[in-house]
Amino acid sequence: MAAMTRPIERLHALGLELPSAPAALASYVPSCLVPIGADRALLFIAGQVPISDGVLMTGRCRVPEDVERGRQAARRCALNILAQIEAAVGLDNVIQVAQVNGWVLSGDDFRDQPQVMDACSNLLVEVLGEAGRHTRTALGTSSLPRGVTCEVNATVVVRVPA
Amino acid sequence: MAAMTRPIERLHALGLELPSAPAALASYVPSCLVPIGADRALLFIAGQVPISDGVLMTGRCRVPEDVERGRQAARRCALNILAQIEAAVGLDNVIQVAQVNGWVLSGDDFRDQPQVMDACSNLLVEVLGEAGRHTRTALGTSSLPRGVTCEVNATVVVRVPA
Amino acid sequence: MAAMTRPIERLHALGLELPSAPAALASYVPSCLVPIGADRALLFIAGQVPISDGVLMTGRCRVPEDVERGRQAARRCALNILAQIEAAVGLDNVIQVAQVNGWVLSGDDFRDQPQVMDACSNLLVEVLGEAGRHTRTALGTSSLPRGVTCEVNATVVVRVPA
Repeated sequence: MAAMTRPIERLHALGLELPSAPAALASYVPSCLVPIGADRALLFIAGQVPISDGVLMTGRCRVPEDVERGRQAARRCALNILAQIEAAVGLDNVIQVAQVNGWVLSGDDFRDQPQVMDACSNLLVEVLGEAGRHTRTALGTSSLPRGVTCEVNATVVVRVPA
Repeated sequence: MAAMTRPIERLHALGLELPSAPAALASYVPSCLVPIGADRALLFIAGQVPISDGVLMTGRCRVPEDVERGRQAARRCALNILAQIEAAVGLDNVIQVAQVNGWVLSGDDFRDQPQVMDACSNLLVEVLGEAGRHTRTALGTSSLPRGVTCEVNATVVVRVPA
Repeated sequence: MAAMTRPIERLHALGLELPSAPAALASYVPSCLVPIGADRALLFIAGQVPISDGVLMTGRCRVPEDVERGRQAARRCALNILAQIEAAVGLDNVIQVAQVNGWVLSGDDFRDQPQVMDACSNLLVEVLGEAGRHTRTALGTSSLPRGVTCEVNATVVVRVPA
């Protein structure tokens, strides 16, 4: 791995391709860049859902056995976050993922949201290295848009031209 | 519309009046201004609920037919966000709405949170123009303070005096 | 109180001890410091749960009588937020708590999330003074990690060395 320093190479080494960045479907935008001085900016990323080739991953996590299905959805959200970063400023310009908030569609008794969200967190670190390590809030909720299994937003510190 | 460049004029053209900014009711404040250099600041806005002339809009969205009622509440949240911006720095000083997070009080099977939140997003754009276009996370939840139909917070980039 | 200007002294005057900052248990970090110029930074703090000496405070708020139990959990979350600030930059370097988001594990009919979260908000102000006054979003949810009674994240403006 030592010679592979670019995020896109790490992604490929994981057998993954970067999807095209999902479009925002309403009066909003997929990301927003806010300069904070010293050639840096905060990149706010809209809530990403687990969409893969146009198909949404749906269904509630009710029991511990549902964790693995949840993890696949959370990993897909991470991939779409990476796609949004690439589309906005390029993955090579990530300084640090500052914040990740993830909501898992859950039955009332489901308590394993952290295990689900770990799949999202892990992919960010696998692809971005230490720059992918972030503060996180893992939450459950009873309903999500179109019944998706999870939804994740993020705030990322990035390099921008002076 | 070309001649109406001020947000308050656009608001009036929509037949709307800016309400007074709802007070925060506890040990918190309705907004917080954080300078980020170059005469700009992040304005954090507390979660706004659909209160209109002191009356809360309450009730859960359960079926698609409830979308319209949800939209009225979401639009009211947007109006209160605009009121908070006006009270803090003035609507004319908005550079960009960076982030909007909205929670819709939902039945377990309600999946149309984006359609509800579009009413909030649309009003921000109608009043602020391109500066109102934001990243968004639309979420469902099973319970909200005092049973309100939705709750929305926002982070806005604004101009501040040097 | 006039002579006690340091947050840690105010904390002790309340009969409280600062716990050690809870470790993040996965591929994430408990806090992230983002410089924003003029010797200041945004400190993002991961979602804190009500853990006290290794024991989690769990259980749902269903009826108004559960508010007091919820408040104890919310106060514990505030204490852990303070511990994270202390570990990251020191409580004496807080300029302003900008944003607090709190989720209360709730029955569908529970509407008193603000009263629960006030216990969190109040402690921040009691310990940090005016610098602890923040924008807040109080939310209910149907499920949380390991069944905790509430979860709270925060964003804080802090002083950092030039």
